Amino acid sequence: MTQPYRPDAALSARWLLDVLDAPATWRELSALAEHADADLTRQVLEEAATFVHEVVAPLNRVGDETGARWHDGAVTMPPGFRDAYQAFWRAGWPALSAPPALGGQGLPVALEFVLYEWLSAANHGWTMAPGLLHGAVECLRHHASPALQARYLPQLVSGEWLATMALTEPHAGSDLGLVRTRATPAGDDGYRIEGTKIFISGGEHDLTDNIVHLVLARLPDAPPGPKGLSLLLAPKWLPDGRRNAIVCERIEAKMGLHASPTCVLRFDGAEGWLVGAPHQGLAAMFVMMNAARLHVALQGIGLLDAAWQKAHAYAHERRQMRAPQRRDPAQAADPIIDHPAVQRLLDTQRAWIDTGRLLAYRTALALDVAHHHPDGARRQAAQRWCALITPVLKAAWTEQAFHGASDCLQVFGGHGYVREWGIEQIVRDARVTMIYEGTNEIQAQDLLLRKTLPDGGAALAALLRELQADAPADAAWHAGAQRLHALLTRLAAADEAQRLALWPVAGDFLRAVALTLMGWARARLGRHDAAWDSEVGAAFDRWVWPEQAWRCEMVERALG
Amino acid sequence: MTQPYRPDAALSARWLLDVLDAPATWRELSALAEHADADLTRQVLEEAATFVHEVVAPLNRVGDETGARWHDGAVTMPPGFRDAYQAFWRAGWPALSAPPALGGQGLPVALEFVLYEWLSAANHGWTMAPGLLHGAVECLRHHASPALQARYLPQLVSGEWLATMALTEPHAGSDLGLVRTRATPAGDDGYRIEGTKIFISGGEHDLTDNIVHLVLARLPDAPPGPKGLSLLLAPKWLPDGRRNAIVCERIEAKMGLHASPTCVLRFDGAEGWLVGAPHQGLAAMFVMMNAARLHVALQGIGLLDAAWQKAHAYAHERRQMRAPQRRDPAQAADPIIDHPAVQRLLDTQRAWIDTGRLLAYRTALALDVAHHHPDGARRQAAQRWCALITPVLKAAWTEQAFHGASDCLQVFGGHGYVREWGIEQIVRDARVTMIYEGTNEIQAQDLLLRKTLPDGGAALAALLRELQADAPADAAWHAGAQRLHALLTRLAAADEAQRLALWPVAGDFLRAVALTLMGWARARLGRHDAAWDSEVGAAFDRWVWPEQAWRCEMVERALG
Repeated sequence: MTQPYRPDAALSARWLLDVLDAPATWRELSALAEHADADLTRQVLEEAATFVHEVVAPLNRVGDETGARWHDGAVTMPPGFRDAYQAFWRAGWPALSAPPALGGQGLPVALEFVLYEWLSAANHGWTMAPGLLHGAVECLRHHASPALQARYLPQLVSGEWLATMALTEPHAGSDLGLVRTRATPAGDDGYRIEGTKIFISGGEHDLTDNIVHLVLARLPDAPPGPKGLSLLLAPKWLPDGRRNAIVCERIEAKMGLHASPTCVLRFDGAEGWLVGAPHQGLAAMFVMMNAARLHVALQGIGLLDAAWQKAHAYAHERRQMRAPQRRDPAQAADPIIDHPAVQRLLDTQRAWIDTGRLLAYRTALALDVAHHHPDGARRQAAQRWCALITPVLKAAWTEQAFHGASDCLQVFGGHGYVREWGIEQIVRDARVTMIYEGTNEIQAQDLLLRKTLPDGGAALAALLRELQADAPADAAWHAGAQRLHALLTRLAAADEAQRLALWPVAGDFLRAVALTLMGWARARLGRHDAAWDSEVGAAFDRWVWPEQAWRCEMVERALG
Repeated sequence: MTQPYRPDAALSARWLLDVLDAPATWRELSALAEHADADLTRQVLEEAATFVHEVVAPLNRVGDETGARWHDGAVTMPPGFRDAYQAFWRAGWPALSAPPALGGQGLPVALEFVLYEWLSAANHGWTMAPGLLHGAVECLRHHASPALQARYLPQLVSGEWLATMALTEPHAGSDLGLVRTRATPAGDDGYRIEGTKIFISGGEHDLTDNIVHLVLARLPDAPPGPKGLSLLLAPKWLPDGRRNAIVCERIEAKMGLHASPTCVLRFDGAEGWLVGAPHQGLAAMFVMMNAARLHVALQGIGLLDAAWQKAHAYAHERRQMRAPQRRDPAQAADPIIDHPAVQRLLDTQRAWIDTGRLLAYRTALALDVAHHHPDGARRQAAQRWCALITPVLKAAWTEQAFHGASDCLQVFGGHGYVREWGIEQIVRDARVTMIYEGTNEIQAQDLLLRKTLPDGGAALAALLRELQADAPADAAWHAGAQRLHALLTRLAAADEAQRLALWPVAGDFLRAVALTLMGWARARLGRHDAAWDSEVGAAFDRWVWPEQAWRCEMVERALG
């Protein structure tokens, strides 16, 4: 009944290479010039698509139904998961975009983005395991001592070992300043960690021979609040072969994502080493967190595409009732794809997936530029894009993943509510993406209160101008962009009372920005593909774009 | 962690008796004059609230976790379910609003509405069992032969036996015209039924000693399509004590509502009797269907209130981060209820619940008037209200139940995604209400294509005028009502191409109507309760009402 997810490698290659002209960007970057070319990109994407479809996607259902199982501190992953993961890292997939100096293949970040979007679509639960690798590598590269890097980076770059992010405690979720876990110097260069962490994805499993935990904790002399947090590395197995004092007390029973063990970890004087300077843990952790947020955005896009694939196939197959324009008068009923409500629903998801993809790919190119461009101004502009778009992509596309997957479930009628077709699993799995790595409300606050109001919207205005210069003449889109510009001007002039009134519309503001960015992507895709323009593009104009004005209006109303 | 749902009997009594002045309506109806008074209403609601809170609500969790279990054709309900049901019918709750001539208590329909809203909030799965009783009684009263009524009505009125609605077949969901089940005259006054029905809620269980199935089937001489459907009654146990040839082949594994067995029933030459005239089955079934649709609307309101209760309590208890206006500077963090995004989220659900409740109670009064008023014009106006509001309440409040419950889950952060707090169960349970008894897309088509376009919007315009006459002077609401009036005028004048363009915005139209009705309820509640006016009412104005204009705009755009 339920077909494994099938990525479209040719489409992703075309959008990356032609619509976004990635090679033009890569040619400017000496680090990538020798690794990145169109043929290699196409070839890697084809191989990735095959791996995703043949190895990872078929395990999605068993992951949900069997789930990860805890027994006496050990976690057994669903059948087939370990083999698939071992094949994954041995084939070099985790090292795709890692620097060659660290043993990576040095390919553009875009290839990693495409790979992880597909993996998430195919099997969200399985993909949680390697999902944090890239962020952990970045975090250690930039903050860990050379000795610690030498001991752990090779296995994390290759993916032979997996990593976790151990932040949350029962009383400290969004508010990491409340963290109580303690790390005490142990005489040597190490520390002993005491405390309990919850919601640790992949905190324990049998996929790999070691697990590297990155743990937020307080040193004895730490000031209270977020400025007293330090980051420590604590492995499951110590370098001398002893088991570290880290106990998986239980795993959570969750709404979805059953294949990913969400662990309660007790650190019983576990041995660890400091990553970065004392009390500077949050900065080090945020390197990992930002990577993770973009990763969650990719999950959102992927899950929505997975839901759309199922619903689109079903809508062509299932016949019920007469559509207003009959396709087959000889048949007793028309395919439900011919029913206008179904068409609108599916086209709307397509518009979100496609514009989200284009924005994600552009963000991947920006990451390459931010890392490698010789011109500091270009690096800075690319960093600005990444900083602004991270909360937008994370919040807007995870919200759409859940609501859009639920819409896709609706296409199945009662059949969508039973497990048989696999669509309800996507709805359950997708729900958590709106929560983890910073709830969507936190993303909205990040965009408005941290990244827009402090500079009077200057960075966002600059980003908008960049897109306007780049966008084809589309009167409706330019009018929308201008309305957002005008709103930024008003935000810059807001007094204290107005700023307070903005808090509850932070989500509307984020959505207004998301829709404006989507409008740019829609124009860009429409210019490159006439068929897309007249189908998905036209649906975007009718069913998605009007919301941009409404969201701007909600923020304007709050300003009074 | 998770508290059983607690109804607020005093609030419901006040809204019914004071805000809507129900006694003024009841006094005009001789059938109710002796049964309905304010003290009795308060007393019944108090007792109902106690039963719901103490007997039914505590079984919600076990219902989800144990679920209904199928073995060899028999279904075992979760622990405690049978005892609770036996207590329920023996206490007379199913017969609350049934006519005294049939053994009922003859109380106003509003009491039954309030009871079922609470039951659904407390335990949606359990409430599925008695949920169809009222519709089955109405269907048999109006369509079954006196002999059939005598044999089955008393046990269905009392609730000693339960009923099902056996419509759907694998290839015939929304489209009942495709039904293939056959009924062949059996020589006596009965028929033999052959066919397989799916998605039969409560098709088999151990709650009662008999189950009465109402089955849509075709007689041998039936014309094709919906005009060839007949309705038959087929009991699990026949009057002479034999087991009828009805086999429960399996129950579905579903996203939620685990406590309600969704059965595949095979009719193997089952014995049954015709309800109503041959080929007139759909009309008879629609008596049941309309009652069921209102019932589903009550589920939506109830589930949303259950989700709000949980999230509201948690938001007062949980402290994370600093709110813009600190409540307790001495504490390390503020309660999350002080965070504006959380306030907006909770107030929005409250506005939906409260306005939905008032509209549902008003609908219950309209049902009383439609059944009992001596003046034919008053009966007709009440019927018009019920016909128009049924799809609106069903679609808009079930959509809000799911999305609003998901919003309430968000208040819990990661804790909402684990089962512990019971909030994710509400999201899973609520999802099906958007599908069953006619998908929300079908409700939107019903409102626009069947109940608005054919009479040029006359009935809806009359209903609007009725509300306008009744609503206090609220400039924003009257402006919204006028915009909807203007839209109805344009709809009446729409040409063929415009009518076609309206299909995909049927959902926007339904939502525009829902919001307009909510605006009336908001004005009415605000006038009666100053505290409500300044809290929930003000939140309604800010966060809910603007959508009315946007939805009107979407329909206007489609008209071109």
